[in-house]
Amino acid sequence: MAEEWMGYLEANQPRFREELLDLLRIPSVSTDPEMAGEVRRAAEWVAARLRRAGMTDVRLLETGGHPAVYGEWLGAPGRPTVLVYGHFDVQPADPLHLWTHPPFEPAVVEGRVYARGATDMKGNLLLPIIACEALLQTEGRLPLNVKFLFEGEEEIGSPHLGPVLEQNRDLLACDVMVSADGGMGTPERPEVWLGPRGLVGLQINLRTADRDLHSGNGGLAVNPIHALVRLLDSMRDAEGRVTVAGFYDRVRPLTPAERAEIAAAALPLEEFRRTTGTRGFFGEPEYTPYERASARPTLEVNGIWGGFTGPGVKTVIPCEAHAKITCRLVPDQSPAEIREKLVAHILAHTPAYAEVSIEHLPGEADPYLIPPDHPAQRALVRVLTRLTGREPRVTRGFGTVPVMGLVKRVLGAETITLGVGQSDERAHAPDEFLRLASFERGQQAFVMLLAELARAL
Amino acid sequence: MAEEWMGYLEANQPRFREELLDLLRIPSVSTDPEMAGEVRRAAEWVAARLRRAGMTDVRLLETGGHPAVYGEWLGAPGRPTVLVYGHFDVQPADPLHLWTHPPFEPAVVEGRVYARGATDMKGNLLLPIIACEALLQTEGRLPLNVKFLFEGEEEIGSPHLGPVLEQNRDLLACDVMVSADGGMGTPERPEVWLGPRGLVGLQINLRTADRDLHSGNGGLAVNPIHALVRLLDSMRDAEGRVTVAGFYDRVRPLTPAERAEIAAAALPLEEFRRTTGTRGFFGEPEYTPYERASARPTLEVNGIWGGFTGPGVKTVIPCEAHAKITCRLVPDQSPAEIREKLVAHILAHTPAYAEVSIEHLPGEADPYLIPPDHPAQRALVRVLTRLTGREPRVTRGFGTVPVMGLVKRVLGAETITLGVGQSDERAHAPDEFLRLASFERGQQAFVMLLAELARAL
Repeated sequence: MAEEWMGYLEANQPRFREELLDLLRIPSVSTDPEMAGEVRRAAEWVAARLRRAGMTDVRLLETGGHPAVYGEWLGAPGRPTVLVYGHFDVQPADPLHLWTHPPFEPAVVEGRVYARGATDMKGNLLLPIIACEALLQTEGRLPLNVKFLFEGEEEIGSPHLGPVLEQNRDLLACDVMVSADGGMGTPERPEVWLGPRGLVGLQINLRTADRDLHSGNGGLAVNPIHALVRLLDSMRDAEGRVTVAGFYDRVRPLTPAERAEIAAAALPLEEFRRTTGTRGFFGEPEYTPYERASARPTLEVNGIWGGFTGPGVKTVIPCEAHAKITCRLVPDQSPAEIREKLVAHILAHTPAYAEVSIEHLPGEADPYLIPPDHPAQRALVRVLTRLTGREPRVTRGFGTVPVMGLVKRVLGAETITLGVGQSDERAHAPDEFLRLASFERGQQAFVMLLAELARAL
Repeated sequence: MAEEWMGYLEANQPRFREELLDLLRIPSVSTDPEMAGEVRRAAEWVAARLRRAGMTDVRLLETGGHPAVYGEWLGAPGRPTVLVYGHFDVQPADPLHLWTHPPFEPAVVEGRVYARGATDMKGNLLLPIIACEALLQTEGRLPLNVKFLFEGEEEIGSPHLGPVLEQNRDLLACDVMVSADGGMGTPERPEVWLGPRGLVGLQINLRTADRDLHSGNGGLAVNPIHALVRLLDSMRDAEGRVTVAGFYDRVRPLTPAERAEIAAAALPLEEFRRTTGTRGFFGEPEYTPYERASARPTLEVNGIWGGFTGPGVKTVIPCEAHAKITCRLVPDQSPAEIREKLVAHILAHTPAYAEVSIEHLPGEADPYLIPPDHPAQRALVRVLTRLTGREPRVTRGFGTVPVMGLVKRVLGAETITLGVGQSDERAHAPDEFLRLASFERGQQAFVMLLAELARAL
């Protein structure tokens, strides 16, 4: 039996690749209001692809924002049901000038496809669809019931996903969720995730006057950039610990076993340095960089701007300055708790000569961790072990996937993660790419996962 | 006699205003390479205007950058010679959306002309030209020899002015210089300047990796914005003193008499607050805001940028971050000395995880102060006293006019300053304007100044 679906995957690989390139050509940038039509076009593309794979009841779920896509195959009554999750929206492509090829004209070079969304996550999105198609075409059935939920707002923090889950509780009811939004390490070094960190973000706007002033007024006019750099610097100490009061209060302490697990899963720092050009490491000295990136919360300034930023000189004292900050959260922190603590810090550290306004950024998400002994998680471990011949390391996701916390809360289901993105593939950055070998291996992994889950659940 | 030139000014005021609007329509933004043709067009406009006023030997002085303009009237052999200085270039107009009227389509509203360059300093530039025209048309001669030197690079720090002075020592030789680039307070509260502050500026570029990274890597990836805010914040203490080692070493201490002079010349802070919307005051607590702005050096961040600055969220850790800083200098600081101290501070405060590169910004200038008892300065005081019926306060310029330090060094001449800009006229900011009453009063002031200088020198 196994040979049949394997043969199908092999025989149809050229078509699957063309489909991937097709999907990558759609600039479905969810954060840009002008691209809303493109995000919808991607939704319709995905719906058509689900139908072609043999899914039924395929439809767009309107959200008030970008639509989600639903599809199902429920031909195994009495068997368990898995809900497959992914997203078809992508990050903005700027700065455009740093791309070797235009971000929405996918280029295949030496076994890699370069495009915005290649690794995050249009490649991953196709894997479970192709896996179901292969099984239906060769075996006429799936080993268990499968539902698909793809959203178009993941990169803006899934603002309508909660309502979609709540309004479609019955439709989306499942025994376990499989998120395709993630990685599995490399074939040489497979990994399974326990879950992502959470997220909360704020934009800080400081204003010191009604209008920009000539910098000759310096000493008399006050400067909001000075207030901003002082405020931002007050949020961490000289060694990189976050100094916002209470920030670490609800962080679960790491056990020695967990620290050993993180150490075992960690890539050599030299490897990260080589693939990113990172000049050095810095942060809470009590923790290793990989502990800091997975089991510790962070506070990052994602953007800062104010005053004259063009070429040459403009001797100006601006009247406003801005920064965007986001925190990655870990159990048992919550977005509301940390938001409140950040706001208190910002208000307490804004000098009297500046006015502050604080905007909540979209994308708040709870941190999530699956219990490592959950049957679905153990099934995933078996699949990766068989696929790669190696026992996968257990790891924690550095990033944020809001859906897991939401699905746990609304549908009561735990989530396992299977995708093929690798950490050097420039997610969210110029020259994002996906290895085509991963694309093919991921299709096999999903077929195997469906069988393992059918046995395990 | 006085009535004759007064009558001429009155009769021709409509034409002079049209000329001012004509000149304001030329977008002579010297910092923008694409506007080079417009800066040259302004130079040619000024040259034509000098010829029309009766100047001889009018010509463009090529500099390798934007041209300067020379003209002269040397019909008073044996009498002293004054060199009139000004500039016909302007600041960039961005941010454009904050302008009520387009910046290069001058709008006359309620006795004010709104346009980029109105107060800084196309209005001022016309004053001495019109004054000479009025005298030549009504009296057939000037009371002393006059030379004009207008440059097109003041707003980018006069990079070619030194060479122009050096290459034209004989042509520009003079007994005293009159800079039209400045103000005279208000009619109710006239002021004379002793001289401007100096300037030195640097751009700081920090890099932590080869490319931007997903902020999910936070804790592992390092953030250049964190390094930049810490570095910038390290340059001043909690009360606003500059902490760069040796920064104040060469600052001349203020005498009690000078402090009294500054206090007497200072506008009420409430007035500054009202006209600028400034929310508060902050800086070296040992000095008043007006002392800080005139007799103390400053270190201002004029611009900062890094990471994602668009609408919405982009969860990125950027690989680079930038800031532009300028210092206003006072006697006896020098640009080279302060530049060296800033560079040492930046290198010492850049963390090991970031690479720094430092660019020198154009516009370095020495601070300058004219001796208050210089005969030309006393002549200026007499003119303002007669014109306004009030004794002018003695004040120090907040801003920078590089020409004064250069002229002192190359031509050996001191400089007095007469212009009509007022501090609320939004130099360098959106909705810059000039009061038309000032424009007319300034023409009279220049006629009177020529006569006073002829007697005094």
